[in-house]
Amino acid sequence: MDRADPEGAIAAAAVACSNWGRWGEDDVLGTVNYLDEAKRREAAALVRQGVSFSLSQRFEMGGPQKGWRRRTNPVHTMLDTGADAVLGHQGFPHGFGGADDVIAMPLQCSTQWDGLGHIFDHGKAWNGRAAEQVVTSDGDRVTGIEHMAAAVTGRGVLLDAGRHLGTDGELPDGFAITTEHLLAVIAAEDVVVGRGDIVLVRTGQLTRARRDGWGDYAGGAAPGLSFTTAQWLHDSEIAAIATDTWGFEVRPNEFEGAFQPLHQVAIPHIGLLIGEMWDLDALAEHCAADGVYEFLLTAAPIPVTGAVGSPVNPIAVK
Amino acid sequence: MDRADPEGAIAAAAVACSNWGRWGEDDVLGTVNYLDEAKRREAAALVRQGVSFSLSQRFEMGGPQKGWRRRTNPVHTMLDTGADAVLGHQGFPHGFGGADDVIAMPLQCSTQWDGLGHIFDHGKAWNGRAAEQVVTSDGDRVTGIEHMAAAVTGRGVLLDAGRHLGTDGELPDGFAITTEHLLAVIAAEDVVVGRGDIVLVRTGQLTRARRDGWGDYAGGAAPGLSFTTAQWLHDSEIAAIATDTWGFEVRPNEFEGAFQPLHQVAIPHIGLLIGEMWDLDALAEHCAADGVYEFLLTAAPIPVTGAVGSPVNPIAVK
Amino acid sequence: MDRADPEGAIAAAAVACSNWGRWGEDDVLGTVNYLDEAKRREAAALVRQGVSFSLSQRFEMGGPQKGWRRRTNPVHTMLDTGADAVLGHQGFPHGFGGADDVIAMPLQCSTQWDGLGHIFDHGKAWNGRAAEQVVTSDGDRVTGIEHMAAAVTGRGVLLDAGRHLGTDGELPDGFAITTEHLLAVIAAEDVVVGRGDIVLVRTGQLTRARRDGWGDYAGGAAPGLSFTTAQWLHDSEIAAIATDTWGFEVRPNEFEGAFQPLHQVAIPHIGLLIGEMWDLDALAEHCAADGVYEFLLTAAPIPVTGAVGSPVNPIAVK
Amino acid sequence: MDRADPEGAIAAAAVACSNWGRWGEDDVLGTVNYLDEAKRREAAALVRQGVSFSLSQRFEMGGPQKGWRRRTNPVHTMLDTGADAVLGHQGFPHGFGGADDVIAMPLQCSTQWDGLGHIFDHGKAWNGRAAEQVVTSDGDRVTGIEHMAAAVTGRGVLLDAGRHLGTDGELPDGFAITTEHLLAVIAAEDVVVGRGDIVLVRTGQLTRARRDGWGDYAGGAAPGLSFTTAQWLHDSEIAAIATDTWGFEVRPNEFEGAFQPLHQVAIPHIGLLIGEMWDLDALAEHCAADGVYEFLLTAAPIPVTGAVGSPVNPIAVK
Repeated sequence: MDRADPEGAIAAAAVACSNWGRWGEDDVLGTVNYLDEAKRREAAALVRQGVSFSLSQRFEMGGPQKGWRRRTNPVHTMLDTGADAVLGHQGFPHGFGGADDVIAMPLQCSTQWDGLGHIFDHGKAWNGRAAEQVVTSDGDRVTGIEHMAAAVTGRGVLLDAGRHLGTDGELPDGFAITTEHLLAVIAAEDVVVGRGDIVLVRTGQLTRARRDGWGDYAGGAAPGLSFTTAQWLHDSEIAAIATDTWGFEVRPNEFEGAFQPLHQVAIPHIGLLIGEMWDLDALAEHCAADGVYEFLLTAAPIPVTGAVGSPVNPIAVK
Repeated sequence: MDRADPEGAIAAAAVACSNWGRWGEDDVLGTVNYLDEAKRREAAALVRQGVSFSLSQRFEMGGPQKGWRRRTNPVHTMLDTGADAVLGHQGFPHGFGGADDVIAMPLQCSTQWDGLGHIFDHGKAWNGRAAEQVVTSDGDRVTGIEHMAAAVTGRGVLLDAGRHLGTDGELPDGFAITTEHLLAVIAAEDVVVGRGDIVLVRTGQLTRARRDGWGDYAGGAAPGLSFTTAQWLHDSEIAAIATDTWGFEVRPNEFEGAFQPLHQVAIPHIGLLIGEMWDLDALAEHCAADGVYEFLLTAAPIPVTGAVGSPVNPIAVK
Repeated sequence: MDRADPEGAIAAAAVACSNWGRWGEDDVLGTVNYLDEAKRREAAALVRQGVSFSLSQRFEMGGPQKGWRRRTNPVHTMLDTGADAVLGHQGFPHGFGGADDVIAMPLQCSTQWDGLGHIFDHGKAWNGRAAEQVVTSDGDRVTGIEHMAAAVTGRGVLLDAGRHLGTDGELPDGFAITTEHLLAVIAAEDVVVGRGDIVLVRTGQLTRARRDGWGDYAGGAAPGLSFTTAQWLHDSEIAAIATDTWGFEVRPNEFEGAFQPLHQVAIPHIGLLIGEMWDLDALAEHCAADGVYEFLLTAAPIPVTGAVGSPVNPIAVK
Repeated sequence: MDRADPEGAIAAAAVACSNWGRWGEDDVLGTVNYLDEAKRREAAALVRQGVSFSLSQRFEMGGPQKGWRRRTNPVHTMLDTGADAVLGHQGFPHGFGGADDVIAMPLQCSTQWDGLGHIFDHGKAWNGRAAEQVVTSDGDRVTGIEHMAAAVTGRGVLLDAGRHLGTDGELPDGFAITTEHLLAVIAAEDVVVGRGDIVLVRTGQLTRARRDGWGDYAGGAAPGLSFTTAQWLHDSEIAAIATDTWGFEVRPNEFEGAFQPLHQVAIPHIGLLIGEMWDLDALAEHCAADGVYEFLLTAAPIPVTGAVGSPVNPIAVK
């Protein structure tokens, strides 16, 4: 890997990992196509105890966003409150009172899926489409997240890289998780990862942020996937992947002067569904305790028409 | 039922159906407490085919809201687009391009859960708490929807009232679904409903709105549950209920000059989790075809801290 | 005027009325350049009584927007209230209490200025610039409304077309105000209009909407300027013009299948600052009473960086 | 002044400075009542050159807010862009293209007026009203900023405290401007301040923030008015006052453990209109150059119905 040549590395990986046309020219699902009914039956059979975990951070003003790319934390305000109800301001009959609320937020502000229209490579969106025809001010007119509304429920596998590769359960910022690392974690957990699975990679960075404060969690240095994992992401035929970090791949990026080069291959070329800012800690603790790292995972995006991303509250059931 | 006395009827039902204190004075889950691990195991075992359904409407400007109670449809705008990327406006290196988006919406604008802080009875919130202490401008400080982040996955049962009681699959506006009706549907479907289940009642109104236009879907006349079902909602010990209508209960309401009297019993007294504006049509078609009306249901609210409601994309897997 | 050929008429008017290059290639003010210090001195001298008028509608949920082009009415919510303060929720010392608020709104939702980046003709923005280089998802990077922050204070002239040309002070919807009409009103009012003036044209439509309800005020039929006034708008060298209607020009537009053709000449070619949805009624009443139709006008846009329009509360002082 | 007893000091000042009832029990204007037509005539006569200044900061994501009290910087997004127009996405006829935009912002995020409903003293709002009856989730139902829509145009006086009392034009953070200081500046400028005037106090802090970065401009240490000026603010019968700082009064506040004690007297008791975050630098430079510190000032709030504050672009004309 020539660290001075992100452009060349991206171009080579794009060719090696392309799924363009694999599911037809009208495809809007990318690797989620791998997640089929058989996989869902397999996933449901993993439920042994019935214990469920939310893998979502809280959506609130106290989140990590600092304004970069105009990403703020969610602003949640009330249209009516209990105080209004008690003070008799609401004008409802027979003692009825109510509270309503409103939110304003970037769709990428907290626990999320990146839609297929989120990232482009040299003007090309997923499946080789012209980016400017796909995502306009009206949103993603082709691959909006709403197309995945029903699809993202299947078998989840937690790869606890923080636990197996790190110190005290955490990888340091800047740690690049390679394919070898992933395979080592898979071996350590004695788990199988393959076609149609949803892979969750825990780095421990969120654990650290929870303990030490957000710092530069939103965009700063972080552990994450190495650019070199592109081939594995492609060849493993996983349906989706998510991490507990802001940006999925290692930061600083591995090339000089680069910005999220793995995204540039994974989303437009592989068609990979990527999740970010997931909270994997409670699930990880449970998995470490019973040694079972696979589960039923339902991670249904809010189907905002034309969205290039979506808040999600992923639910793992073991 | 004295149609001229909503206040008296509500007071009586509140006494008859109260769950205050049942799960301790600190409870924040209400009837969701009924949904336990055994129920989740039972639910997972219902997955036979692996087919999944999204029960969410699309979140978009084309939704039904007309501004009442300052409820608008979602306003989804882009922070960056494919057009910007192609025109070279973004300033990223090596051909990287991206799209980001923002949303502003009421949490009650489309497919949703009503949180336990959504409705009060004479200044009392769920579990007998003082409404003005629970829901302030900071949001619901006690029973915010985030407390249910992990809990709402279990066994769903579709009661297709539109199909079994209506004409061409639809109940007319103003049709009050009584307990007798519910039991008749349960019998017709040969299904069991009990403790911890999540009950989905399809009226067919959304089918009609999809065909004929929204009209007054958001707040106007609608089929829905009769006030008299309060006792069944309580006694059946279901964990949650949802409908394909704006307001869950029949409208116009059954009392003169009333407003959502069943809510006033169900939320603050029963502690019942209520879903509204769910899209049950595709699921209903499948259930009618194979005669199986039960399924694994994951309906995870987006955990907005302090929210009195939440968008949700419920996923049913059969 | 060939009603079947908007394209031809627009092209001809664009040539006849072009101000491209008049104020240099870097210009960001358009016709506001006509408004100079001498004009401001003249305007200040018009203050005789010291009576002031706000020409702004109220910004509120009760406004005329119905969702077209995702334009909603303003959603104004509270971050803190008096109720919260009294109930002791705020945590401030020594009896301090406070209220804060938030707004979400289109910049074109109510009384406004259209920025120079608001309308394009065949991909050309004001001064001949490439529209795609001027207005991106980052906003108007060249002619954002902030550039006019200090400029729009000068001599205003009210042309009360409703009063002088209409019935009971109102022009009917669809009434096209021609140059002859404008000159007739100017004559009737015995007023002078010329270089650097800000012209306010009252049609009476807002008076009607206030009486009869909004109806299709936001985008429907309306009295307004005829396309044929383009030449006068150019030749008169006025600095700006505003009306009490949603769209400034007559609607339905005068060409078949057309959409706002006068805008297409006035903004990108003349560089004219256009105001819409102004409330001219109280001012008009005063002018009719004393026969004085000129005044000091301060109409300062909120300088949102990169905005293509701005809310404004214009103040007339006589 | 006993620095350990803010409560006592506030109570004493509240009694000494109260204007409750002065303009009747229905008053919604407070000290703006002092600004009459005579004052406006006087103000208009101050226009000698016709040069105008915007005293507004830019409304943009790059502003000083950091999330405290859920105050964000403005989020400005586009509904349509020039890029969309050029790419033919908009569907308009005859080469018409357009751009529209949306904003979400706290009304207190940048250059602003504090409405009379913004601050309470022990549950009392302006004129002795019960705060919980005045400001609810519906906004300020009595003294909303819309009531001042037409009123705030009159004579402005710049008191350049930074220039006359500071070093290189700037007062240090924590500098408390006393009545003696104000009188010294008035004397140095040879200007008169009295009933109905709008007083602008420049500290130089914004100059510093512009040079050195925002730092804690939004809520941190700052020069500003001493609590002890309450009496002068009352007795001088000024209509309004504004500063170039976030919070008008000196910070840290002069009492131990206090929060904005001068606000607590000035708004609910004096009924004083207070402006914050004004940009006085260009005006100050002009005043210093010609020695004239008075001018026509038009500072019209955007009339958001029920707002407790408003963005404003104040225009000074000399």
